[in-house]
Amino acid sequence: GGGGELKCGADLVLITGANRGLGLEMVKQMVDTQSPLTPLSVLFACCRDPDGPRAEELRALAKKHPDIIKVISEQVGSLLGEKGLNLVINNAAILINSTLVDSTPEDMAKTFNTNVIGPMSVIQEFLPYLRAAAKNSEVPGMSCRKAAVVNVSSIGSFNMSLCLNVFLSYCLQAALNMLNACAAFEFQKEEILFTVLHPGWVRTDMGTADAPIDCEESIQGVLQVINSMSDKHHGVLTDYEGQTINW
Amino acid sequence: GGGGELKCGADLVLITGANRGLGLEMVKQMVDTQSPLTPLSVLFACCRDPDGPRAEELRALAKKHPDIIKVISEQVGSLLGEKGLNLVINNAAILINSTLVDSTPEDMAKTFNTNVIGPMSVIQEFLPYLRAAAKNSEVPGMSCRKAAVVNVSSIGSFNMSLCLNVFLSYCLQAALNMLNACAAFEFQKEEILFTVLHPGWVRTDMGTADAPIDCEESIQGVLQVINSMSDKHHGVLTDYEGQTINW
Repeated sequence: GGGGELKCGADLVLITGANRGLGLEMVKQMVDTQSPLTPLSVLFACCRDPDGPRAEELRALAKKHPDIIKVISEQVGSLLGEKGLNLVINNAAILINSTLVDSTPEDMAKTFNTNVIGPMSVIQEFLPYLRAAAKNSEVPGMSCRKAAVVNVSSIGSFNMSLCLNVFLSYCLQAALNMLNACAAFEFQKEEILFTVLHPGWVRTDMGTADAPIDCEESIQGVLQVINSMSDKHHGVLTDYEGQTINW
Repeated sequence: GGGGELKCGADLVLITGANRGLGLEMVKQMVDTQSPLTPLSVLFACCRDPDGPRAEELRALAKKHPDIIKVISEQVGSLLGEKGLNLVINNAAILINSTLVDSTPEDMAKTFNTNVIGPMSVIQEFLPYLRAAAKNSEVPGMSCRKAAVVNVSSIGSFNMSLCLNVFLSYCLQAALNMLNACAAFEFQKEEILFTVLHPGWVRTDMGTADAPIDCEESIQGVLQVINSMSDKHHGVLTDYEGQTINW
């Protein structure tokens, strides 16, 4: 395929937290013709302030691919047609350095809003479109080509030393994992796939310079895993190399 | 011992949500001489509105045992001396009937506040007093006679049909379990015991009339388990019959 063709094994995709870090890297790689994934038609790249200074790089990318990338912050329901939405990537999350003793009510509310209420509201908002996509599909089973929600995990392993330093994010990752398991159970019959995907420990602002892999390597793995997702990923946690994580 | 003597295997005890349901039953049984537990000196019975109509029964009970039961809502730090506090029972919790699809941001905030921020704030508030009690103790190992936090669980099993009906409480119970596990790891060396205790499915307003056991039976079991708690309960979930629960 030629340049500018969106490469991902899904037709209509929405991603949150698309303006920086791993989210921005996902957008980049999904429109890169070198990506191993197959093309799709529209990518809704969501961020809190699409016109602000922190979304500059995303806007530049969207300008290069105006037919594919739509940068938005508001409800996209009105932009979606009868085909629905195939893939929702719940990527926005925060990691606050705080211990059990020094976590403030403000830290708690902020982390809960972003890491639990956020993904849940996105699921509630786009469920009708995921349902439409699942119904429109003639392929049996689950996949990101049909209807899927990928919840990107801020924490990828049950590691007690982590829980000391990012205590709240750790507790709320447990809540998000449970949210995913409940959603997987509830929407099994409708064949909407729900999964949690950990991108690895990555050299981003969040992951610090000590992390072993960079954004590019992480997201290459993440997109491969998303592309290969099937019933066996439903309700479970997987890392960017495709390994199942037991919490 | 004579009537009015407080029976519990701890010296200084604090309990939240003491004005009704299981909390009130715990207060009742702890001052009952028929209880299998050994006596203690002060019970701080906390509730949101100790002067309100919903705390009438608790106030009547405290009037019968003025030397033992202190009914309060504010910080009790000023009432606590050098001996500290041996046992904190985080009992206050709510269970909102809501599914993933119909949970509102208001439900979420309310459940998160009561079921996660609440227990966490209580732990933060009383940690210095638990530490004092742990240091003052000359007995090795962990127990409710030394320094312990019992987090009463609103949900006692990993049961998918439950997660459909009380979705938010289910997700946040996972967060509370993780909070308990992290706290257990953090305070292991100081020998402060952290545990989650499920009182069973009980005939209360919350548990409905369909539940198999009543408050009395549940709390008889709960107090026996609390009384027998040791290092093996640290960081884990236990039910009112003393069985370990795997989430």
